[in-house]
Amino acid sequence: MPAPATADTTCQEYEKVLTAAQAAAPVLAAMPLTERAGLLRAVAGALRTQADELVPLADADSSLGVPRLTGEVERTAGQLEMFADAVEEGSWLEAIIDRAGASGAGPDLRRMLIPLGPVAVFGASNFPFAFGLAGGDTAAALAAGCPVVAKAHPAQPRLSGAYARVVVDALHAAGAPEGTFAVVHGMENGRKLVTDARIAAVAFTGSTAGGRALADLAATRPSPIPFYGELGSLNPVFVTREAARVRGKEIAGGFLASMSLGAGQFCTKPGVLFVPAGYGLEDLIAAEAATAPMRLLHEGIGTAFRAEAARLAAHPAVRPLSVPEQDAADESVVRPVLVSTTATELARCPGQLLVECFGPFALVVTYTDDAELPAAADLVDGNLTATVHGEQSGDPVAPALLRTLTGRAGRVIWNGWPTGVTVGWAQHHGGPYPATTSVHTSVGVTAMRRFLRPVAYQSVPDTVLPPALRDANDLRIPRRVDGALTAAPVTAPR
Amino acid sequence: MPAPATADTTCQEYEKVLTAAQAAAPVLAAMPLTERAGLLRAVAGALRTQADELVPLADADSSLGVPRLTGEVERTAGQLEMFADAVEEGSWLEAIIDRAGASGAGPDLRRMLIPLGPVAVFGASNFPFAFGLAGGDTAAALAAGCPVVAKAHPAQPRLSGAYARVVVDALHAAGAPEGTFAVVHGMENGRKLVTDARIAAVAFTGSTAGGRALADLAATRPSPIPFYGELGSLNPVFVTREAARVRGKEIAGGFLASMSLGAGQFCTKPGVLFVPAGYGLEDLIAAEAATAPMRLLHEGIGTAFRAEAARLAAHPAVRPLSVPEQDAADESVVRPVLVSTTATELARCPGQLLVECFGPFALVVTYTDDAELPAAADLVDGNLTATVHGEQSGDPVAPALLRTLTGRAGRVIWNGWPTGVTVGWAQHHGGPYPATTSVHTSVGVTAMRRFLRPVAYQSVPDTVLPPALRDANDLRIPRRVDGALTAAPVTAPR
Repeated sequence: MPAPATADTTCQEYEKVLTAAQAAAPVLAAMPLTERAGLLRAVAGALRTQADELVPLADADSSLGVPRLTGEVERTAGQLEMFADAVEEGSWLEAIIDRAGASGAGPDLRRMLIPLGPVAVFGASNFPFAFGLAGGDTAAALAAGCPVVAKAHPAQPRLSGAYARVVVDALHAAGAPEGTFAVVHGMENGRKLVTDARIAAVAFTGSTAGGRALADLAATRPSPIPFYGELGSLNPVFVTREAARVRGKEIAGGFLASMSLGAGQFCTKPGVLFVPAGYGLEDLIAAEAATAPMRLLHEGIGTAFRAEAARLAAHPAVRPLSVPEQDAADESVVRPVLVSTTATELARCPGQLLVECFGPFALVVTYTDDAELPAAADLVDGNLTATVHGEQSGDPVAPALLRTLTGRAGRVIWNGWPTGVTVGWAQHHGGPYPATTSVHTSVGVTAMRRFLRPVAYQSVPDTVLPPALRDANDLRIPRRVDGALTAAPVTAPR
Repeated sequence: MPAPATADTTCQEYEKVLTAAQAAAPVLAAMPLTERAGLLRAVAGALRTQADELVPLADADSSLGVPRLTGEVERTAGQLEMFADAVEEGSWLEAIIDRAGASGAGPDLRRMLIPLGPVAVFGASNFPFAFGLAGGDTAAALAAGCPVVAKAHPAQPRLSGAYARVVVDALHAAGAPEGTFAVVHGMENGRKLVTDARIAAVAFTGSTAGGRALADLAATRPSPIPFYGELGSLNPVFVTREAARVRGKEIAGGFLASMSLGAGQFCTKPGVLFVPAGYGLEDLIAAEAATAPMRLLHEGIGTAFRAEAARLAAHPAVRPLSVPEQDAADESVVRPVLVSTTATELARCPGQLLVECFGPFALVVTYTDDAELPAAADLVDGNLTATVHGEQSGDPVAPALLRTLTGRAGRVIWNGWPTGVTVGWAQHHGGPYPATTSVHTSVGVTAMRRFLRPVAYQSVPDTVLPPALRDANDLRIPRRVDGALTAAPVTAPR
């Protein structure tokens, strides 16, 4: 079935969407937390109910396969429910009460976080559901109380309309104000969103080039807004000598599985692996590398992969580990490419070799001396993740390396693989630029923080205060009162 | 005494400072929290001990007077001590532990905040101590574990050197690594700091024009960093009909005192006052307005004030309330200027009249219908503060107005005045642009959040984890473990 032609959203329709989002903002902000949580649960339920309709459309768009996409719908629904629970738990409000006299002669001062306003969401193509129209960014923004205007991804012509309808209908049925969620189509409308005075923040997941262009555009606004971009990441993995000795074969297999998961189209794909020379890991990887063709998300990604993998494979500093000939028939079908170099050669031209190649490509770097590892870690840019494979005993290099990598990544992994991002309280999916353009996460409960700003109320009467800051604490949320954390009401007058 | 000529920091010295700051970053980050708190307390102690030396220098630079500046030293010392206490309390680390299995089949994941790295601080001239070299931004950055490179304000030629020396010596004596704090001089060095790859964040307090220029410069970096600017604010005050009736005279007096505090050079100066027509508040203000000359911070501010106040007083939409002739002798000595207009006229040219005029200037706006108030509130840009004077009974307009103003300001005040910013847990000194360029505060404990970023550790052995995330919780800090807030250690294996 050929992809339907999706027309760009017209100017009139765009205006209608933005006006509705602006009107929905105060209504959504004032909605009781249990009702707001109910909206998220309604979308989760609708996604589960209508997965059978949506998954085939997503598969036709992305070629990611029905099992993986079915799992992704469940992950997306679970993510919405996690935010629903967090909304009710209420610690994200960061309520702080300093009663009169708490700080010297100060007045009664009560601070909490409030929603920023309408958020523009640019989803990714590699996770059509989980990072798509009702993915993590949308769920976090709605949880924070912000309406969402999502830009449809051009690589999802079949899914976008149906996915949007499920979300809009579910929100409507659950009592959300009109304008809580809408989708716009067309690249020019995406740029309009980023500079629109009615948009209060942007969340973007995609390429470094595309994200940076929009971030730069956002910076030119008369009134700047936060731009939360999750861009590129190499996700380096370091294997110590001791780990290579004890479980080299297991590591080689784990690496190959992780780098080719989803045809290498995870933002957490390990793109570079550092191994000690002389333990045969390169040979194991070369021998076990899959060479069967994989279908990438769309032709543009296939073409870019072929060009970039070929450029890297032809670089004078690298030698092939597994460089199968690519088929000419279909640009979007590719075979995995693995090449290697040495830490010494890498140090001569890191900027040419340490670049993200989206798809099933990886670079294996051999080192001969443990002292090369910290220097190698310093060569990599900011990353979503960095991984160390080591042994707890007799492996003195590992702890120091872990500490060094903390400066280079948002998530540091011990003896695991970066692909697979748990959705929970402690997750951090972000990292120094270009991994993200901010210090925030796009996955996990704390992702809500991106769409909130503090307000302090000074000497405001209890009845006029938002419920979260009233003495009674009817919401039973955790608060800091006169410096101490408590979920109790403020009872005795000071 | 003529101001000493302060030479710009040389290239060699600048390099030395930045190299030292970069080297200090990991040492400071790894320092036990009690020791880090000790550094802040040492600076506080040194400021108190050497106040007698510093205050006259600050007075010679700023003309703010010895009593006010003596109080400001105490405020600055207290602020450092507040951050020291907060560092030890530890909730700012936002430690979150999801043990293996806490979220479905997820691995052990532990998240906390870590320091960003060296911070460039641009202090303000209107609070030489509290927003100066060891003011709120520096205290918050050091508390977060970040070295500080402060740019000396050109209007503090006498104070800067001595102030810096007190801070550097105190830090050195308390065991801080070399490079924890340094000062650079010269405008070009300020611009260099903003684009320096070794600087991880910028904190700025000053004018909208100056701050925006540096923010735009920061946005052009190959690797963008957060720019935390506290820029301009009008701080509107709204007086309801009922409040004007009950305590018009008290309000007029309070307003005049607040707008002329520190010669109108507070960032929270109420620059515009909305009063109901027919209650005589304009006449009271005109009659009671001070006309005695006031010395501003420096000649440049005096010249800018004269020009802007004259422009506003000559605007066809305004009439004079108190527009004394300015003296020709000394540009930096000025007399307060007060003018008025109507809400109707204001609505025709808000961009021309609702502008910050730094110094003792204010605009009084009369309204005839309560319905004009929400519309008037919508005309003002983002602000640090917004204030309502109302009566709790028989004043239905006040609660709605308070809620509207929440969208326009970072701190909403009931029956008080915006000048005077308590330093404590609940303070928020920030607001929608141009009040600040971010969603963060520059005053209060939560100001630390600007200089931190999250890192998650996945399956990392307990002994390798930072102390804040180890099972034992020896630091006794509040943490979220498997979703629940607790200060207890993680005991039972899951």
